[in-house]
Amino acid sequence: MAEADFIQRLRAIATHPAARGLADDAAVLGDLVITHDMIVEGVHYLATDPPVDVAWKLLAVNLSDLAAKGAEPEGVLLGYPLREADWDAAFADGLAEALGHFGVPLLGGDTVSAPKDAPRMIGMTALGRSTHAPDRRGALAGDDLWLIGAIGEAGAGLAIAQGTDGPADLLSAYRRPVPLLAEGRLLAPHAHAMADVSDGLLIDAARIAAASGLAVAIDLDKVPRSAVLTAFAGDDRAARLAAVTAGDDYALICAAPPQAAGEIERTGALRIGRFGVGAGLSLHDRDGDVPLPDRIGYEHARP
Amino acid sequence: MAEADFIQRLRAIATHPAARGLADDAAVLGDLVITHDMIVEGVHYLATDPPVDVAWKLLAVNLSDLAAKGAEPEGVLLGYPLREADWDAAFADGLAEALGHFGVPLLGGDTVSAPKDAPRMIGMTALGRSTHAPDRRGALAGDDLWLIGAIGEAGAGLAIAQGTDGPADLLSAYRRPVPLLAEGRLLAPHAHAMADVSDGLLIDAARIAAASGLAVAIDLDKVPRSAVLTAFAGDDRAARLAAVTAGDDYALICAAPPQAAGEIERTGALRIGRFGVGAGLSLHDRDGDVPLPDRIGYEHARP
Repeated sequence: MAEADFIQRLRAIATHPAARGLADDAAVLGDLVITHDMIVEGVHYLATDPPVDVAWKLLAVNLSDLAAKGAEPEGVLLGYPLREADWDAAFADGLAEALGHFGVPLLGGDTVSAPKDAPRMIGMTALGRSTHAPDRRGALAGDDLWLIGAIGEAGAGLAIAQGTDGPADLLSAYRRPVPLLAEGRLLAPHAHAMADVSDGLLIDAARIAAASGLAVAIDLDKVPRSAVLTAFAGDDRAARLAAVTAGDDYALICAAPPQAAGEIERTGALRIGRFGVGAGLSLHDRDGDVPLPDRIGYEHARP
Repeated sequence: MAEADFIQRLRAIATHPAARGLADDAAVLGDLVITHDMIVEGVHYLATDPPVDVAWKLLAVNLSDLAAKGAEPEGVLLGYPLREADWDAAFADGLAEALGHFGVPLLGGDTVSAPKDAPRMIGMTALGRSTHAPDRRGALAGDDLWLIGAIGEAGAGLAIAQGTDGPADLLSAYRRPVPLLAEGRLLAPHAHAMADVSDGLLIDAARIAAASGLAVAIDLDKVPRSAVLTAFAGDDRAARLAAVTAGDDYALICAAPPQAAGEIERTGALRIGRFGVGAGLSLHDRDGDVPLPDRIGYEHARP
């Protein structure tokens, strides 16, 4: 509960409207969208993950926050603790590759010396512009819950990175997530609320509902499962629940009114649930109510 | 040289004009000024420094970068690794106090779990607006070098924090530096180049000269010394050299043409040197040339 106390103290400071109560993926100051994410060795990535992939992931995680606000990226700043020349050089190469891939400039940052035995904590700030940046707190009762992107593949990829045998596509979903920037810009104008799925589909959908003062019901059968994921993890209820509670997917979810359904379907998003009056998350499938698993996603502090 | 190699790799990526070749205090994108600084326990502050002061310093260091670009702060984002509930709570209180003091909103950030034995690395991003953000690279031959702010007091304060007996004012200069935001805004319209003094007066002045392709000569007698610093550290040449090579001052230096001298004097800045054709740093005082000390400031990697 020390984490909760710290966040509570920060929320009490962050009264500026641009901070959005520290409940959103990013701060929104006029048309400027700005986010800062850190990744910690052993927490957000494995010490054995290749440094080029760690660089990719750091960028992807930050750009995904911009995607969730419908923003076009303008640039990033890096906060980097130097530790080991080879690892650092490979990280820089990976960053160059990833920035080139997404067409985003490196604008600045800070490089510091870190004690040799300290775990790496690498920070990145991303900024972008959005003319319509949906808040996490804006869902209305009666809105549909839409999802775009794969769910559960990164969780399977983590198991593979940790030693389970499995296909490279799933490993890549974990190590090289792809922020859905174009999709975010298409969805934003129609969305009452939007967020990326970083900690698990269930927990992130529940956070939109909680932030909006609503309940949300999700149809587990509607959550898409790729053939590669089904082949790896199976397709029973346990496998489906594992997918919707795994993190690192960087899919997007949004709440939108039923009259926007036509426009939203054209983006490729799938309708997987509904917001209603009340509170809390419920799950169902063709057989009826599905009891919630004990853990609905990654709970970690975020201001 | 691993650091230099890493920075070189980043510079090769950072080709966008807003990055200013990663040679400036901040990135400048239109009227937006944005900077990211990290502070590391045992490197940028002492493990024994009170957490409220560490929060103050983190904010001050970032705002000083904005001051050096003549910017008005708009807000900050925090990258914070949680480790110890009491320390974290005191840090949050110190941050609230410092943000309140400077009237700057907390807009967002990220809080992560950190391994219990990891040294703290805390990141902050500050953004502001400036209609005229002088580059570090813009000094011209014939420009005067101007200084505003105290030099050497934070270095003396560090010695006091490490156990030497000395006055509270100097300790405070080290633990609670004050970014010269109003002074930066007054100087910026007249300055060809401007920077804050974070690593030592000599090294930071030499960096302006190097970035501008010039030489700079500094008159050691013109560098101001407060009575409290003189009483603590003495006033001989060694004491004067110690002051101009100590870090953490967060004074401002700028290069400006002689015809701006009247305007600049009114800000309280002091003329301490001159830029000229050539390369390198030279020092003199009333007795003539002063040999450069072996170490002219803190050399640490910064992208």
